[in-house]
Amino acid sequence: MGEIALPNGISNGNINGVNGQSHSLNGYRKSCWYEEEIEEDLRWCFALNSILHTGASQYQDIALLDTKPFGKALVIDGKLQSAETDEFIYHECLVHPALLHNPSPKNVFIMGGGEGSTARELLRHKTIDKVVMCDIDEEVVNFCKSYFVVNKEAFRDTRLEVVINDARVELEARDESYDVIIGDLADPIDGGPCYKLYTKSFYELIVKPRLKQGGIFVTQAGPAGIFSHTEVFSCIYNTLRQVFKYVVPYSAHIPSYADIWGWVMASDSPLDLSAEELDLRMRHRIKGENGYLDGKTFTSASTLSKTVRNSLDNETHVYTEESARFIYGHGKHA
Amino acid sequence: MGEIALPNGISNGNINGVNGQSHSLNGYRKSCWYEEEIEEDLRWCFALNSILHTGASQYQDIALLDTKPFGKALVIDGKLQSAETDEFIYHECLVHPALLHNPSPKNVFIMGGGEGSTARELLRHKTIDKVVMCDIDEEVVNFCKSYFVVNKEAFRDTRLEVVINDARVELEARDESYDVIIGDLADPIDGGPCYKLYTKSFYELIVKPRLKQGGIFVTQAGPAGIFSHTEVFSCIYNTLRQVFKYVVPYSAHIPSYADIWGWVMASDSPLDLSAEELDLRMRHRIKGENGYLDGKTFTSASTLSKTVRNSLDNETHVYTEESARFIYGHGKHA
Amino acid sequence: MGEIALPNGISNGNINGVNGQSHSLNGYRKSCWYEEEIEEDLRWCFALNSILHTGASQYQDIALLDTKPFGKALVIDGKLQSAETDEFIYHECLVHPALLHNPSPKNVFIMGGGEGSTARELLRHKTIDKVVMCDIDEEVVNFCKSYFVVNKEAFRDTRLEVVINDARVELEARDESYDVIIGDLADPIDGGPCYKLYTKSFYELIVKPRLKQGGIFVTQAGPAGIFSHTEVFSCIYNTLRQVFKYVVPYSAHIPSYADIWGWVMASDSPLDLSAEELDLRMRHRIKGENGYLDGKTFTSASTLSKTVRNSLDNETHVYTEESARFIYGHGKHA
Amino acid sequence: MGEIALPNGISNGNINGVNGQSHSLNGYRKSCWYEEEIEEDLRWCFALNSILHTGASQYQDIALLDTKPFGKALVIDGKLQSAETDEFIYHECLVHPALLHNPSPKNVFIMGGGEGSTARELLRHKTIDKVVMCDIDEEVVNFCKSYFVVNKEAFRDTRLEVVINDARVELEARDESYDVIIGDLADPIDGGPCYKLYTKSFYELIVKPRLKQGGIFVTQAGPAGIFSHTEVFSCIYNTLRQVFKYVVPYSAHIPSYADIWGWVMASDSPLDLSAEELDLRMRHRIKGENGYLDGKTFTSASTLSKTVRNSLDNETHVYTEESARFIYGHGKHA
Repeated sequence: MGEIALPNGISNGNINGVNGQSHSLNGYRKSCWYEEEIEEDLRWCFALNSILHTGASQYQDIALLDTKPFGKALVIDGKLQSAETDEFIYHECLVHPALLHNPSPKNVFIMGGGEGSTARELLRHKTIDKVVMCDIDEEVVNFCKSYFVVNKEAFRDTRLEVVINDARVELEARDESYDVIIGDLADPIDGGPCYKLYTKSFYELIVKPRLKQGGIFVTQAGPAGIFSHTEVFSCIYNTLRQVFKYVVPYSAHIPSYADIWGWVMASDSPLDLSAEELDLRMRHRIKGENGYLDGKTFTSASTLSKTVRNSLDNETHVYTEESARFIYGHGKHA
Repeated sequence: MGEIALPNGISNGNINGVNGQSHSLNGYRKSCWYEEEIEEDLRWCFALNSILHTGASQYQDIALLDTKPFGKALVIDGKLQSAETDEFIYHECLVHPALLHNPSPKNVFIMGGGEGSTARELLRHKTIDKVVMCDIDEEVVNFCKSYFVVNKEAFRDTRLEVVINDARVELEARDESYDVIIGDLADPIDGGPCYKLYTKSFYELIVKPRLKQGGIFVTQAGPAGIFSHTEVFSCIYNTLRQVFKYVVPYSAHIPSYADIWGWVMASDSPLDLSAEELDLRMRHRIKGENGYLDGKTFTSASTLSKTVRNSLDNETHVYTEESARFIYGHGKHA
Repeated sequence: MGEIALPNGISNGNINGVNGQSHSLNGYRKSCWYEEEIEEDLRWCFALNSILHTGASQYQDIALLDTKPFGKALVIDGKLQSAETDEFIYHECLVHPALLHNPSPKNVFIMGGGEGSTARELLRHKTIDKVVMCDIDEEVVNFCKSYFVVNKEAFRDTRLEVVINDARVELEARDESYDVIIGDLADPIDGGPCYKLYTKSFYELIVKPRLKQGGIFVTQAGPAGIFSHTEVFSCIYNTLRQVFKYVVPYSAHIPSYADIWGWVMASDSPLDLSAEELDLRMRHRIKGENGYLDGKTFTSASTLSKTVRNSLDNETHVYTEESARFIYGHGKHA
Repeated sequence: MGEIALPNGISNGNINGVNGQSHSLNGYRKSCWYEEEIEEDLRWCFALNSILHTGASQYQDIALLDTKPFGKALVIDGKLQSAETDEFIYHECLVHPALLHNPSPKNVFIMGGGEGSTARELLRHKTIDKVVMCDIDEEVVNFCKSYFVVNKEAFRDTRLEVVINDARVELEARDESYDVIIGDLADPIDGGPCYKLYTKSFYELIVKPRLKQGGIFVTQAGPAGIFSHTEVFSCIYNTLRQVFKYVVPYSAHIPSYADIWGWVMASDSPLDLSAEELDLRMRHRIKGENGYLDGKTFTSASTLSKTVRNSLDNETHVYTEESARFIYGHGKHA
């Protein structure tokens, strides 16, 4: 067939218009698959509608896929980062608990978060004056800025300052301190780009000094399933409790990840709002409705199962510059 | 190569003894996969160690696979039923909450449950005098009796009566009533073998009359994820609340199912024990330690996320002999 | 991420420019696959670069994929039709042997062939005055016309007449007769759209009367592997030898089909040119160089292996309006 | 389910007896797959009936699978070596042409061939007094001896001497010379175990001196498809023509390999028997009927397509101790 021209003669749309269900059952649609190796011996596969974009930045491969089960999906270095249909679970859980536990959060620093969805959730809070998003990969930021219409408004918001830099370097360089600091980074892998941003010394010497009185740190903390929580979740929790007085681990199921996901919130001030207080603060402070999170949901999310709870209590490993734990595949992020 | 002999000359074991990690990474092991279509456009694949048994009964295909990620797995008609490493989550959640909420459960009727794990969990309760397990497929029962060493003791327990029959017919035929009736059946599919065991009329006319004063009914209720709960979970819940005064839906993540799973507990007596009361009753009544469930875990499991909670509240569909909802693939059970 | 915009801000190209090999090994590229079920128990999977086009005509699903191993691939109803890197094998084998065995072919009728590649090969013959391409699916013809730059010249050639019609009806309606008639159709499946175009009565009553004195009929004849040749190849051969004096089956391996493919050439005049005579005629009659076929190649292609040769000799099945044989999956073409 | 017992209570057979077609279509059978990466971007997958054996020797992983499309399959280090339904093609092509071109072959040396099928074909020749099979992996030899009933007779044949050693070392150490030497080894990979057995110096200094006057060397020569022949086939051919006066490359399609396979035969005496002479010698010398090969088949097999023929003619690469070419995946053999 040789070289291909893509004329406007036949557009995808009007042909698809003709297409009936019986077709899509037998036809090519089910023939194209995105396949992710969650573990070496475990695969998770989505039927594809199309491959919207593929490319690579200085740091990583980027792909935007249109998947049948989970809509548009951002894939970085062969690992699903975010899927259209359920990213709200991840981002609501990352952002709102910490902000709500703070009496009146005005400025927030995001380590990573180039996708823009974390900023989007932050900017829904009426108390927010300023959000600094510090991501190392400019191309990912530009990519998401252009593609993710749902975050367009956030990227345009004058309260958002986007900085392209290593979050550690940037945070160290800044004098201002923050009500909330958010870790929206790849998991801690020895040799991975983000490992240094999960160590005890980093939390002690760089994050804590940048938190205001009563400030709160929260980070995504990797898979938190009954088996997978030992990969990094329990260690991130244990590392943080070496540094902060109050540490709250919580988790939620994210269908496109085929697993429970975990977050850890930490502070030197108590983190003990009731479901009712959380609901009240949401009503007053957050513009629009949450899709996933409310007071009861957080109560449930922060009450871990017996298995995971005991495992976290008994975790002894602490992340230091010297020690690390691996999580499958993410090494590719390096 | 033609016909194959399987002499004792070379046994699997002693050869595997030689086998190093580097081998199993490159070698055939990752080349053999079990693949399940969770939905038409979603696949879940496990690397295989071996295929321990394959066969078919009068009703269904049976396979016992040795999978790398989840150990031995029972597959019926191409759908994973139970995996060695996490079946305890399913069975503890199915059995213990109902039994604990009952002041002193003596006799229990299991609809289905041929695998034997439900009986195993029941028989851990010191108050139990009698368990009737009524499964329609004798070959599955015999298969599990012979293969599942972990349930061998349960199958031998004199308190267990195994009946091969249609659970509806059997329950109808019996005069005795029960402290707890447990539904451990395939999901309700129109045309599926179990659909009739999820209808309002079945609950009203057959289950309820067989419950003692203060008796409790509990059933597995299909996937309960943020998207998947609408397949059958919300309808089972809504159907039961037409029939019982108190209805408690709850859920837990089962890794090998790649989803959250749901159960619904129903009674005309209140179902409102605190985490502490549950823990107390577990200590007094249950032999051995639970792997997954304790009081806090149940509190969390029975506090659904905002999304699912609202969806259940607003569910209007009721299962009747006339109406049904489908769940992907399970039609094969028919 | 929600709705997606596709701005020119980031083009595929300049990002890919950055991309190194190490990326494409780990990255998403290997994560996207086209999967074809060659048989129910046999799959053939190509890594995907992108999905260039998807749609459906009145008759079938159409997809144009960019595959890593075989370049652009045309997929109709989930079956690979033609791949950029090796379609020349199929089309040279379909067209040139018949034309070369004819002393001076002037006009040719193609049943099917909407892709345009068969016409392209025909029009390389200097003796050709007229080619009629009769395909039933106008959208496929338009699709290929617009996309397959390699066939653009052929589609523009004034000697080519494109007719949208059922080839049987069209051939019946025409009075003119042809030096060569070419069958470039889907395989004969009972109930399939093309079955009627492979029957003894069709060859006897419609094809043969439309052939000039010394005219030649040639048709693609499905898989011709040591196992797969019994699907349709041997029956097409046996059906044609009921109708024509001289019948020559031949075959060639087409990598993207993961099998040997077969063709059958038939006439009432001898078909016995030597390799040397074929090479001589190619030099004189065909513009440009063949990629695959020359005299020796045809000698080899028309000398079948012992297994297939004996199987064809012993074939007794004849395609009639009443009887048919199935070939896996192609039923979808119906 | 925990530990599994395998009682005789339920045997595979009698349960399978019950199993109907409708079952095997929906059921687990299609859920278990063997998957081979032919290239990094190309996969070939067989549905599995069972995994008969898995293990590892000192050198490699060994698996014996029961596949639906190709019967029992021997897989070494994740690469299919030999499939029950079509191994006869490979072994007839490897053995018979060389033996038939020799006026009266009495003794033969096999480098590799531990499976036993090469010896089996050799021992069908009435002229043979002695066959030396020299394989480095004793466990593979023992494995095949015990499992491949079809080769049992060959392994018992008193004319067969099995030696466990590096073929190069063994051949060097022996004084006796051979009518035919056969290379039945893994493909030449730089760093692979067999690379040294494909170099010009090996052929010149070790193989040739061990051949009797008029002796013939033949070796398997890797994939010989229109694209894949450049991996090693063309180089093996070109290397041999540096050393021998007469060199004949030939090829055949092996369905389970999803490709054409190649062999090269070399001698300092002419290799130019006609199809008729070959058929005559087969009748006189070989016990039993060939499944694949006869005179015409060899004529066809040794007449390569224009593409491959030209590519071989123009090949300039020669294997030496210093230079090598890679073939995908086989590096694992190292």
